[in-house]
Order: sequence, then structure tokens, then C-alpha cells
Amino acid sequence: GLREFCTALHPARTAEFMEGLSPEEAWGVLDHADLSLQGEILSYFDYHRQVEMLEARPPESVAPVVATMSADDQVDLLGEVEEETAEQILACFSVDDRRDVLRLSNYEEGTAGAIMTTEMARLSENLTAREALKELTDQAEHLETIYYLYVVDDFGSLHGVVSTRDIVSALSKPQKHLSEIMETEVIHANVLDDQEDVLRKMADYDLLAIPVVDEELRLVGIITHDDILDVVVEEAAEDAYRAAAVEPLEETYLRTSVLTLSRKRGVWLAVLFVGAFLTTFALEQFESDLERIPWLVIFIPLVISTGGNSGNQSATLVITALNKGEASVRDWWIIMRRELAMGLILGLIMAFMGMLLALFKSPTPYSALVVPTTLVLVVIAGTLIGSMLPLMFKKIGLDPALMSNPFVAGLIDLFGIVIYLKVALLLLE
Amino acid sequence: GLREFCTALHPARTAEFMEGLSPEEAWGVLDHADLSLQGEILSYFDYHRQVEMLEARPPESVAPVVATMSADDQVDLLGEVEEETAEQILACFSVDDRRDVLRLSNYEEGTAGAIMTTEMARLSENLTAREALKELTDQAEHLETIYYLYVVDDFGSLHGVVSTRDIVSALSKPQKHLSEIMETEVIHANVLDDQEDVLRKMADYDLLAIPVVDEELRLVGIITHDDILDVVVEEAAEDAYRAAAVEPLEETYLRTSVLTLSRKRGVWLAVLFVGAFLTTFALEQFESDLERIPWLVIFIPLVISTGGNSGNQSATLVITALNKGEASVRDWWIIMRRELAMGLILGLIMAFMGMLLALFKSPTPYSALVVPTTLVLVVIAGTLIGSMLPLMFKKIGLDPALMSNPFVAGLIDLFGIVIYLKVALLLLE
Ligand SMILES: [Mg+2]
Ligand SMILES: [Mg+2]
Ligand SMILES: [Mg+2]
Ligand SMILES: [Mg+2]
Ligand SMILES: [Mg+2]
Ligand SMILES: [Mg+2]
Ligand SMILES: [Mg+2]
Ligand SMILES: [Mg+2]
Ligand SMILES: [Mg+2]
Ligand SMILES: [Mg+2]
Ligand SMILES: [Mg+2]
Ligand SMILES: [Mg+2]
Ligand SMILES: [Mg+2]
Repeated sequence: GLREFCTALHPARTAEFMEGLSPEEAWGVLDHADLSLQGEILSYFDYHRQVEMLEARPPESVAPVVATMSADDQVDLLGEVEEETAEQILACFSVDDRRDVLRLSNYEEGTAGAIMTTEMARLSENLTAREALKELTDQAEHLETIYYLYVVDDFGSLHGVVSTRDIVSALSKPQKHLSEIMETEVIHANVLDDQEDVLRKMADYDLLAIPVVDEELRLVGIITHDDILDVVVEEAAEDAYRAAAVEPLEETYLRTSVLTLSRKRGVWLAVLFVGAFLTTFALEQFESDLERIPWLVIFIPLVISTGGNSGNQSATLVITALNKGEASVRDWWIIMRRELAMGLILGLIMAFMGMLLALFKSPTPYSALVVPTTLVLVVIAGTLIGSMLPLMFKKIGLDPALMSNPFVAGLIDLFGIVIYLKVALLLLE
Repeated sequence: GLREFCTALHPARTAEFMEGLSPEEAWGVLDHADLSLQGEILSYFDYHRQVEMLEARPPESVAPVVATMSADDQVDLLGEVEEETAEQILACFSVDDRRDVLRLSNYEEGTAGAIMTTEMARLSENLTAREALKELTDQAEHLETIYYLYVVDDFGSLHGVVSTRDIVSALSKPQKHLSEIMETEVIHANVLDDQEDVLRKMADYDLLAIPVVDEELRLVGIITHDDILDVVVEEAAEDAYRAAAVEPLEETYLRTSVLTLSRKRGVWLAVLFVGAFLTTFALEQFESDLERIPWLVIFIPLVISTGGNSGNQSATLVITALNKGEASVRDWWIIMRRELAMGLILGLIMAFMGMLLALFKSPTPYSALVVPTTLVLVVIAGTLIGSMLPLMFKKIGLDPALMSNPFVAGLIDLFGIVIYLKVALLLLE
């Protein structure tokens, strides 16, 4: 029956199978599961479905289900429903739960506080391994993870960490105290840390969960592996948007309205457009020269796109290295030398191919030399601008990924035009 | 003393502190730890240091340390050292360990098999919760994770999964059999699955580890949260490289030689360059027109860069949505309609700004109309090409991220030139 349907599968799977149901029908199925399973299944619905579900029944009747969810999920969910509904649901919570939700919702997006949850095992160091396991057994249902236990003193300060693995290993000597098993150098995050720093730490130390402390070093939450996985995916998408000059979306592409998308694109497109005005001014300076030597025009897009492409490559290489912590601003000098070398190599290759083409399209073999000479210089300009710009952004505290690719391409369009026509005039007149 | 240094900190931290030491000095410190801790600390060194360490001592003396590492790390590491050294180290392994390494190293990069490890808890369903915990206690040291136990039959087929959490919860009824606690609908990966599909599954179901089965559904390995986190980071970097027309690097940027980097960039740069030849052919067709109406030249870079930018935005939006599983090829029709609408909105905004500029730079207000008219069409071409190209790539089985951004920009350069000059001739002659 429906009860088996709810319990036999992984809650995420059950949620998947219920996708086609209306909120009322979905509640009809969920009614066959107990509260905490209802909460778990609900937490795997996508946000819009969750919100619909919460609004399909009166607040008093959904509150107990929401109350079983972990605090971080409660915050995310209550942030999406109507403010009034959220308040009515919160009003049905216990004082403690309400306080947790209100506290967590105060942390700014992108900080450790905003992704942590509050249900972690806090134990005293005087417990033995066996007692600790007993405690865990009793609390297991209410914890976000039972795999790390945090040892705190009476003031809530974090003193140590014990993994369930350590406890299980120690069960051969069940009288050992936690103080003897625990690790006292606890790798932790601060509540205000950037989520990317937390991610880096969890990846470096291969942690399942990381404890979060406040300014007074009191344990206030944990961040678990599943939430950090969502952070990476989200951060990667954000970087990709930025690199293409799109303001990061809060929603999926298909759920974001055309108007919102147009706004998120339009802002940067307009900035880049105004920047590109400069190319018209630059070309105007050379208008009479271009009238005298008209064949020069046909190479303009080739020259600037090649510079832009090499610039984008450099920018992406440097941004990726910065993001992965493989390079830092201090490496600018070595990066610059390497990019200069690459610019020279790549420029020479493009110059060779460009020369072949130019021999057919320019009036004399000598005049054809303008194209390869320009290409070497433009490709080098591309690698230098592309690599140094993200480092400068980082240096002054901006996200290095901020619009770098189109920004780089725009700069190279401008430099490329000037370099090309200066070289042409120098060689031809 | 040195023994405390090795044991007091998280092994990753110890590894960090040892960064400055020579391989010989590092071994001198490690000698104070027991074998398995040596292996753990070693596994947190970066690959180059690990390789140096393995080559600093004779194979017989490093083999026992390597033997304590998990099989996936062994494979990665032995893949980096000299083939001869690897063979000598493997020769010191037990038959079972050697077989595991050889088997794992056969799986292709990017598949589940290549990131899984073989140290998981396999138990029979006849065990009670208490017995299972006892088993875990005994095996804990040799397991990659003790947090999921897999129930297999005599042929090794996967029948169920029990989490340590479930066992701990069940300890109040310690005589319960695993068959009563276990979940039988096990979420699993196939050994040949793409690592991105595995990642999606682990993220959707919030799993700590996922079991991997072979074609006969026998349990052959597990993939753990820390390795999947590395996969996301790696895949995101790969997508970023592709979007900028760089062949993905196998190494960090700073460790990759200038020559290798030049090759990884040069290949695509050359392809794009040859593609850009077409812009010179296109412009040649209009050479006499441009000589007659010379002011048209100054808007060429503005027009094509704006089309390219809007195209990159669309490509990135669609690629990100595909990567996150938020949209699929089947949505092409709705995506096309949305992009058409955005192209129109954004195009009109650019047209308005472009008109203002053109009024100053073109001989008559009427002739200025060429610029805004072109901009609307070019931006629409950008959104349509940018959004449809990744979908077409996906449809024919290519990575949608494959070079999309520069490829899109190159196409728009070509289309943009033709649209611009056709519009100009239509309006002005
Ligand atoms: Mg961020
Ligand atoms: Mg949150
Ligand atoms: Mg890691
Ligand atoms: Mg959570
Ligand atoms: Mg979550
Ligand atoms: Mg970022
Ligand atoms: Mg361009
Ligand atoms: Mg891949
Ligand atoms: Mg591997
Ligand atoms: Mg998840
Ligand atoms: Mg591993
Ligand atoms: Mg690993
Ligand atoms: Mg990919």
C-alpha cells in the first residue's frame, strides 16, 4: 500500500515518483508515512513544489512536518514561502527550534553561517566510548550527522572532535574516555567565513562535516558534505555566468522569467557596449588611412578575434588556477613571463598562417607583412592582458572571474585595432 | 617529539607542515609514525612530493607504506611514478592488494571505476545489529568508510545497504538482523558510468558513498564523498577550459610547461583562426561598398562584439542548465522561443544606445538607422546561435561545453559582418 511506497524507497526516490502529483494528492500519500519521513521526503522536492505543498494545507498542520527537517533546510524553505505563512509556521515551532531558524536566517548568503545547520552531537569529554555510543543511539534521529561528535565544555566552546569511526574502533576498550580518543586540534570554520574557504578546507582535509564556531569560539553549527557539494556546483555555475557577463541567476534558467534574464544580461551587455564605443573612436582616427589603404579593412575582425581568443584562454587559465588555490597574486611575475613566452609562441604560429592568407589578399608580398607582425603583437597583448587582469581584480578584492572574458575581449578589440593600424602605417608609409 | 608531531594533528595538517622538507627529511619524520599513519600523511602530499618520496627510498621499504593507502590512491600514485618503480612496489604487495590495483587501473579515466576504491564493508544479511557493529569494530582500520555497510550474497551480488546510523539506532534492539534493517532498493552506480552521472546521483540523494557494481551486479567498489568533491572541482575546471578553447590540463597551470600549454591552446586557436579566415572573404565581397561608404567601417567591431557577447551569454546559460540537469535537449523549442524574446529585448536596448552613437558618427540621421537595425538582428542571431549550438552538440553526443564560447563568437563575427553590410546596402542604396 501507500505506507510501503513511502518507506521502501530512498526518500529522494519517493519524492521523484511523486513529481506528477498535485499538492493535495502528494499530502494524501505522505499522510501514510510518519512525521520525520514526511519531512525527509519533502526536503527532496524541488523548492517550488515544497512551497506549493506548504501553502496547500493550513500552517498548523504543516508545521510539525517542517519541524522535523534540519534547521538549514527550514531556513531555506521558510525563506521561499509568503512571509505570513512562514511566521505562522514558525509560531507552531518550539522556542528552541524557532530561535535556531531566526539565528541562521541572519547570516549573509555565501557565508558559513548561511549553509550550516544546528543539529550536531555535543558531548562532554568525561563520557566513555560506550556511553558516547549510547548517547548517539538515543539522539541519532535528531542529528544531521552522527559521524562526528564534538566535545564541548560548559560554555559551549569546542574542545575536540571524535569520529564515530574512532568510537567504533575504541569499542574493544569501551571504558576509554572521549578525552583520550578525541582529536584536540579541530579543523573548523568561522561563522562568517566565505563558503568557498569552507569548501577548500573540507576538500583539503576530506571531511564529512566541519564544525562552525562563532567569534567566541563556541560551537554553533556544522556544515555537512552534501551541502558543500551543492556549494561547489553553485559556485562553478556562478563563475561560468560571470565569465560570460551574466549576473548569476537565483533560479534555474527555465524558471527565470525572460524579463529577469534580460535584466541580468542587459546590464553587462550595456556596459560592454559602451566600452565598445571606444573602438569606433579608435577607427575614426584612422578613417582617412583606411580610405587610402582599403584592403586593410578585411583583416580587422580576424586580428581582433584572434587577440580576444588568446586573451580569453589566458584569463581562464589564471582564474581557474586562482579558484583552485594553485596560484596566487604573488605569482604574478612568473605568470607574466610564462604568458609572454606563450604569447610569442602562439603569435608566431598565427603569424605564419596569417602570412599565407595575407599573401593572397594584400597587393604586394611586402605589404602582406603587416598581418603577421600585427598578429604576434596582438596575441602577446591578449596573453598579457588576459592573465594580468584577473590578478589585478583579485588584488583589489574583486572576484577575478568578474566578467573577465568579455571584458578582456573588449579591451583586445581596442588594443588590436590600434596595434594593427599603427603597424600598417609604420610598414606601409 | 616527532612522534607527537605526527599524531597530534590531522594528517593533512602534518603533511602541510612538512612541505618544506626534503624527501629524506620527510621520511626521517614519518619514521616516527606507524605505517598506516605514514600512508595517510603521505596521501595528503601533493602528487609530485608523493612521487619524490617514493623514489627517495628503495621500493621494498616504501611498499608497506603504500600498501596501507586506499586502493584508489594507490592506483593514482603508482600511475605517476616510473613504471619500473611501480612494478617493484607492486611486487611487494599481497596477491589480493596487487589484484585490486591492477583491476582498478584498467578503468578508463572519467568512469566510476577509475575513482572507486575497493575497501568497503561487506556483510551477510544474517548478522544481527550487534554482530555487525562488532565486525565493523574489527575491520574499521581497513575500510575507506565505515558509514555504509553493504549486504551481499555468496556470489558478491549487492542485496542491501545499512548505514552505521541505522545500526546505531537499532542498538536498542541489538538482536535485529541486518535483513530487517537494510534498505533493499540500493542506489548504486555501474562501473562504466560517467563520473558526472555518479556525481549527480550522489548530490541528488545526499550520499556519503555510493556502491559500484559490475555488469553482473556484483559489488566491486565504492566511491566516497571526498573523491566526488574532487570530481566536481575537476569537471568545473574542465568546462571552464573548454569554454575558453583550451584543451583541459592534466596538471596545475604553474606545473604545466609553457610548451605543453602552447600546444593545448594552439590547437584550438589555430582552428578558430582558420575559421576566422571566412571573415576576410566576407569583407572582401563588400570591399567596393566599403570604399563607397567608408564610415561603415568604424562600426564593424562594435556590431560583431555585441553579437558575440550576447551569444556567449546564451551559450553559457544553456550549457550551465544542461550541466546541472535543469534543461535537456527536448526543451529546445521553449529555449529557442525564450532566447528569441531576449534577443529582441536586448537588441532593442543596444539599438537605442547604438542609435545615439550613430547619430554623431554617420553623415545623416537616416543613414544612422543602419546601426540600430543591424544591432537588433545581430543580437538575435547571437542568442539563437549561442543557445542552439550547445543543444546541437549535446544532441550529436559531443560535450556541449566544447569550445562553445569562442566558436559562437567566431560564427557571430561572420554572420554579423554579412548582416551589417546587407542592411547597410538595403537602407542606403
Ligand atoms: Mg562566492
Ligand atoms: Mg541556507
Ligand atoms: Mg580531498
Ligand atoms: Mg543539510
Ligand atoms: Mg541539503
Ligand atoms: Mg567564486
Ligand atoms: Mg570578438
Ligand atoms: Mg567528463
Ligand atoms: Mg583514480
Ligand atoms: Mg544534495
Ligand atoms: Mg579515496
Ligand atoms: Mg581522495
Ligand atoms: Mg563536463
